[in-house]
This record gives sequence, structure tokens and C-alpha cells, in this order.
Amino acid sequence: MKCGRCRAPAVIDVRRHNAGYCRDCFVRHCGEQVRRAVEQFDMIRPGERVLVAVSGGKDSLGLWQLLRELGYEADGLCLGLGIGEYSDASTRHTRAFASERDLRLLEVDLASEYGFDVENGARVAHRAPCSACGLSKRHLFNASAIEHGYDVVATGHNLDDEAAVLFGNVLRWETEYLGRQHPVLPASPGFVRKVKPLIRLSEREMAAYCVLSDIDYIVEECPMAAGNRHLGYKNALNEIEERSPGTKAAFVLGFLERGHDRFTDEVAEARAELRPCTQCGAPTPGDVCAFCRMRARAIGAPIAVRSES
Amino acid sequence: MKCGRCRAPAVIDVRRHNAGYCRDCFVRHCGEQVRRAVEQFDMIRPGERVLVAVSGGKDSLGLWQLLRELGYEADGLCLGLGIGEYSDASTRHTRAFASERDLRLLEVDLASEYGFDVENGARVAHRAPCSACGLSKRHLFNASAIEHGYDVVATGHNLDDEAAVLFGNVLRWETEYLGRQHPVLPASPGFVRKVKPLIRLSEREMAAYCVLSDIDYIVEECPMAAGNRHLGYKNALNEIEERSPGTKAAFVLGFLERGHDRFTDEVAEARAELRPCTQCGAPTPGDVCAFCRMRARAIGAPIAVRSES
Repeated sequence: MKCGRCRAPAVIDVRRHNAGYCRDCFVRHCGEQVRRAVEQFDMIRPGERVLVAVSGGKDSLGLWQLLRELGYEADGLCLGLGIGEYSDASTRHTRAFASERDLRLLEVDLASEYGFDVENGARVAHRAPCSACGLSKRHLFNASAIEHGYDVVATGHNLDDEAAVLFGNVLRWETEYLGRQHPVLPASPGFVRKVKPLIRLSEREMAAYCVLSDIDYIVEECPMAAGNRHLGYKNALNEIEERSPGTKAAFVLGFLERGHDRFTDEVAEARAELRPCTQCGAPTPGDVCAFCRMRARAIGAPIAVRSES
Repeated sequence: MKCGRCRAPAVIDVRRHNAGYCRDCFVRHCGEQVRRAVEQFDMIRPGERVLVAVSGGKDSLGLWQLLRELGYEADGLCLGLGIGEYSDASTRHTRAFASERDLRLLEVDLASEYGFDVENGARVAHRAPCSACGLSKRHLFNASAIEHGYDVVATGHNLDDEAAVLFGNVLRWETEYLGRQHPVLPASPGFVRKVKPLIRLSEREMAAYCVLSDIDYIVEECPMAAGNRHLGYKNALNEIEERSPGTKAAFVLGFLERGHDRFTDEVAEARAELRPCTQCGAPTPGDVCAFCRMRARAIGAPIAVRSES
């Protein structure tokens, strides 16, 4: 097989695009897909400072590199979530990536700065570990971005991630989640903008991008996620994609074109009801945000509630 | 395992309902699910005449029996579609079922009454066989119901069928099809009401219902359907259902509760633009309906078009 762009020998084929690529053209293809996503959804404007949420995996390290190569001022944020050897390896890969390229990396450690980790947070809050972890990450990415003056948080969710989440939301017709599922969550009081520039690139493309770009990423998946529903949805979609290449992209991009806007009513309502958390100031529908409630339970601290009147 | 209702030994368990049933209680359960569906969606009103679209398979024969046992005046319609031995066996099973129970069965033979069969209709119309077959069935069920004065056409689409079709429509965000996907299509000029009373019963439940009710149905699936996309979607959903019983029901019923109405805009527009087919009088967006166009190509007849002006 030859590269469809320059006729050199191809090193990868992307069935969805019915195309083969040589190394250089594939790396360029990935950059173009990110640029298209950023432009199509107006993710990052000129001069804005971007904070990339980095786990040390292929998606987040690949995203960081792609954004830098497209010329964005993108720094990294690495969270210590306390998930044993996985978290340690994640931090090691991230630090090595940043120092080799002389990039600025912020770090926040859940245990030393907040007094708990994902595992005991999940236990006390009666949440699945992936739920407690997601809650913590969303909270800390946003808080750090505000603290350090970033305009945008960029996360490495790829096409496969978005397709699996969309599939789960559709299977249960989680209408509010469907209204929130978009590659751009606009800024609002207390929230910086959140963007997903890898929406047009698959898991396999990101792995290939890292290998072909000499990015040394952590290959292990988080041990807490093994066997979760999300992976079942990914498998189901992979089987369909295998028979009909392009199904996942059509599913996610078709939703954004023709589905998403039909589900935004509840999101607007929910957003209008937010007020600052009495503990940390983050927007929340109640008095105390879910992160501060989980933390208070985990460290056994009382929660100061808003006084009545 | 014991029957959850009467404590007799169970002959089947339905994981979605987390319940086992003995023969009699299971047959009653199936009747209740049909009654609930008919009531919830206002499918059939007292005194209305129902025409059941019958293929000789478990769903359509089971549906016919269930509707009769619930007291509805339900007759059958069997189409000769010319799909070789499959069609012959389908007709044999249907005739035997009707004559053993002394039920009224209408028959329409595509080849002898319209001059073509599904296979050559598909070829000349450049349609997949399942598409040509579906088009023919929809046309003939509706035309026969009108000709013989029925108020409602009932089809044997079960929960698995609806879930697979919904999955396909959602994967491609076919917004107009999503707006049409409902267990009741209301009557409109030129169309009788179409209903799907098995929406709350799975494929497996219908097979068990027929076995336990001594209904001798054709077990073979249509040979034309082998390997089609629809079956791929069913398999994907079955794997998810296996891990999370109830997923399919939540998917279909959740869509009807919280999704469907968000997609009805285009359906109303499309319906407003229909006018009678110049050949057969059935409502169509053009001059000649898709069935009459397919037939004209298949038999080499000219199509009379509406004169300009």
C-alpha cells in the first residue's frame, strides 16, 4: 500500500478515510484533523492560553504535542489521583515528556493537597471509582485553570471515547447529558471553556501518532476502569466499525450536526440555577459542590452550609 | 427456580424483569405486556377491526393469537412475496395456523396480482432486497386494510426489532426516521393506523410464547436478510443486554418517553406534502408512489405522470 498523498510506502491505513499514509503525511493528517476540529467548533481563539489535562497516555500527550505544533500556547496539568502504581507511572511519563520538550507542567496531588484519593473518595461518596475520578478531575482542571489564568482546558477525549459516551447516553436517553455532550463547553461564571480537540481522531490513530512521533506514553489503562460499561460500549461499536468503517465518526459528528441542539433545553435550565459553592466557590446547583461534599466525607470534616433566610 | 407469581416450578426466566414464570403465568405475562402496550399508546379502540400482518414466524403468529385472546376482532393478511421456499413455507404455516383456529386470513400474491416479486423488484429499483420487501409490505398492508375496511394494521415488530432499528437510526442520526419511529403511526388521509403491540416483548419471549402455546411457526429467518446490518445491530445490543439486562427495553421505551418528540418536526412537514399517487391513489410526495414506480420498472410498463399545469 502506498501513501495516498505522496506515493511513498504507507505505514498505516485509515479505513474510515479509505486512505493509506506514510509517516510524515500521517502526522500531518493528525494535525489537520485537530485544526479542523478547533476551527469547526471555535475551540481556541488567537492569543488564548490553553491548559492540557495530561494523564501520560497516548491521547493527552499526543494532544499536547499536536496543539504545540499548531502554535498554541499550551501548558500541561497532571493530577496525582492516588491510583497506586498506575498514577505513579502516569506522572513519570508526563514529567519525562514535559522536561524533554521543555514544556511547562503544573501538578496537583489529590492526597497531599486535598487529603483523600480516588479510592476512598469513591467509597465514602458511594460512587463508582470512575465517577469519583471524573468528578475530581473536572473540578481540579477547572479550579487550576482559573487559579493560573488559563482561558481553556483541553482534554484528550478521542473519537472512540466520545462515541462510547454518546452510545451510553443514548441507550439510557440521558437527555441532560446529551445536551451537555459537545466538543466545546462554553465558559460561564466560574467555569473556563472546555474543549476536546481530538474529536476527529480515533484511539488507533492517536496510538499510531504517538508511536510515529516518538512519544513515550503509558500503555496500561487505568486498572479501576477494567470491565466498566464504557469498555463494553467501545467493544460493541468496534464490531460495527469493523464491518462499516466510518460508523463511529458518522455517529458522533452526525449527533453534533443534527442531534445535539434538540437536547439543550434542560442544560440551559440547569445552568441558570447554579450558584457558588460555599466551600470553594465553584458553581453548583446546591450549597456545596459535589467535589467538596465528597472531600468532606473522605476527610471527616463538617460542611459549612449556607445559612437560611 | 420457581414462578414468581404462583410458586409452581418455573419454565422460563426473564432477566429483564428479574422473574421466573410457569407456563400459564408466562402466557398471562405476554398478554399483559400486549395489553399494556395497546393501552399506553392508545393503539386499538373498542370495536375497531384489526388486520394482522402475518409472515408465519413467531412474532406475527404470536401477535395474532395474543390479540384474539385479548378479545380483539383481528384477521390476518399473508403476502406471497416470491422468496422461493421461504415464502412457500411462510404461507403454509400461516394457513395451517388460521385454519386450525378458524380465523379469517386474507392473501395477496405479489407475482400473480402485481406481476413481479421482491427479487426482481429490488434489482430494477436498485434497492437492497430488504428495502424492496419492506416497501412492498408497507404498501400492500395499507392497501388491503383500506380495501377491506380495517381500521388498524398490526405488525409483529418486537422489542429487539425496534431496538435494532432505533440503534441504526441513532448511529446515523436519521432524524426523519427517528421522528417516524413510534409504536403507533396515526391514520391520515390514505393511511390506516399502524401499530406494534409487541414493543414490550423480546424475541426470546415471543419464541417461548409460541412454544408454550403450541403455535407451529416457521423458524427459518428470511434468507435475503442474512448478514444484513440490522442483524449486526441486534448482536451488538444482545452483548450489552447480556451484561446489563433491561438495556434494550430502557433504550426503546426511554426513546419514546424522552427522545421521540424531539424529532417530529420533519415528519409533520413531509406528511403535509403528500398527495395521491396517480397510479394507485396512495399518498406520496411525488406523482407516482415508490411501490408503483418499482412495479412499473419491474413489469416494463410506462408510468402515467400527472400532466403539467
